[in-house]
Amino acid sequence: MISVVILGAGNVATHLFKGFKKTNTVSVVQWYNRNLSAIQPYKNLVDITDDLTALKDADVYVLAVSDDAISDLSSKLPFTDKLVVHTSGSIGVYDLDSKNHRGVLYPLQTFSKDTVLDFANVPICYETIHKKSYPILKTLAHGLGGPTKRINSDQRRVLHLAAVFVNNFTNQLYRIGHEITESEGAEFDLLKPLILETAKKVQDISPFRSQTGPAKRNDKKTIKKQLKALENPQHKAIYELLTNAIKKTHGR
Amino acid sequence: MISVVILGAGNVATHLFKGFKKTNTVSVVQWYNRNLSAIQPYKNLVDITDDLTALKDADVYVLAVSDDAISDLSSKLPFTDKLVVHTSGSIGVYDLDSKNHRGVLYPLQTFSKDTVLDFANVPICYETIHKKSYPILKTLAHGLGGPTKRINSDQRRVLHLAAVFVNNFTNQLYRIGHEITESEGAEFDLLKPLILETAKKVQDISPFRSQTGPAKRNDKKTIKKQLKALENPQHKAIYELLTNAIKKTHGR
Repeated sequence: MISVVILGAGNVATHLFKGFKKTNTVSVVQWYNRNLSAIQPYKNLVDITDDLTALKDADVYVLAVSDDAISDLSSKLPFTDKLVVHTSGSIGVYDLDSKNHRGVLYPLQTFSKDTVLDFANVPICYETIHKKSYPILKTLAHGLGGPTKRINSDQRRVLHLAAVFVNNFTNQLYRIGHEITESEGAEFDLLKPLILETAKKVQDISPFRSQTGPAKRNDKKTIKKQLKALENPQHKAIYELLTNAIKKTHGR
Repeated sequence: MISVVILGAGNVATHLFKGFKKTNTVSVVQWYNRNLSAIQPYKNLVDITDDLTALKDADVYVLAVSDDAISDLSSKLPFTDKLVVHTSGSIGVYDLDSKNHRGVLYPLQTFSKDTVLDFANVPICYETIHKKSYPILKTLAHGLGGPTKRINSDQRRVLHLAAVFVNNFTNQLYRIGHEITESEGAEFDLLKPLILETAKKVQDISPFRSQTGPAKRNDKKTIKKQLKALENPQHKAIYELLTNAIKKTHGR
């Protein structure tokens, strides 16, 4: 049984708490947040504190706080030679204070406060510069029940970067789809099955193979017509850039 | 029972044939293609022909052929005053020859030859400039079992345009995610649950509300770091443009 202290009270911290609670390989012995009220609702399930000097002894300290707070919080920890990990995709493992053994437990998923998260669908990427800590980090990651992967910092960097493309940027394309359809009183709802099918397709075949549409076919007539129909200059620029990217990818 | 003749042998034609075959409100009385070999495998299920002069009498003729072929094929039909529809998102209803009653049956989904398509997930948009044909077109659309929607030409135009954004352009973002991860030997597979979750989120909440990430937070440090990490100039341009679009949408 691995003992864990969670630090932070955001979406990732809360989902991790709930995820660890369900396993029988990990025990959350304490939950810290500088503002106690945020974790108050959980006080019957776990020991809570807002006092760093009162932190309990544990195998792993999980810093699930905002990127900007990681370095500072790690240097304020009142102990040394313990395993301390953050959960960020973009912060270096060396940004953690060197007085402790350093690592990362990076859940590659989008977290919302109000949606229920099934960790079976959350790949956990783990990384440490203290080699002896790999087994414990692996057990911790496995405990959440989804796929796990030992990665290095370069791989985490590109995964986080790719996540911005497939999640944030994709979501913005959905938003543009919403704007375009509403402009004529058409229903965005009609696009939802297509959105889901597009995401499902690449679960089995590569995005290269699953591409379709006017840009891939280099259907100049349709491309010209659609560019003309776009009134918003930003939408037009995105249309042009992504059409060219598809053409380049598919050798047009 | 509505009788239908399908013309064409591409993905849409084939899926429509299979979809209509399952209903008890629509009967496919004939399948035409100028090249008979493409529909030869179905000859025991339906009357097939490559001869336009041999077309049977039917309530609706569905021209499921490539955009470029629609106008020409419609003018070659050896009859008048029948209901003739095409299935394209981008071709005008007036591009059909005026000697027949004209309409559109536009399935808003991505069609692949090798995947099984459940029409329950395919919104069918229908449209006609021959008002008396609406009831029969509605019955035809309903027969496929998914959501249906009567639309006008402007709405079809924006739906098709929006579909390019949420399907083709989104798929290209997946492709870029694939390229970026592979560049460091990271696994694209790790991104698949995120891709699916991003698509699932907007089934229930608006893309505006479901947005997250560095651009929405205007996290300048991460944006700068990620832009620097991108080596491909086209990836960089897409990152900048979509980051700015998100910032604009969210008032940053």
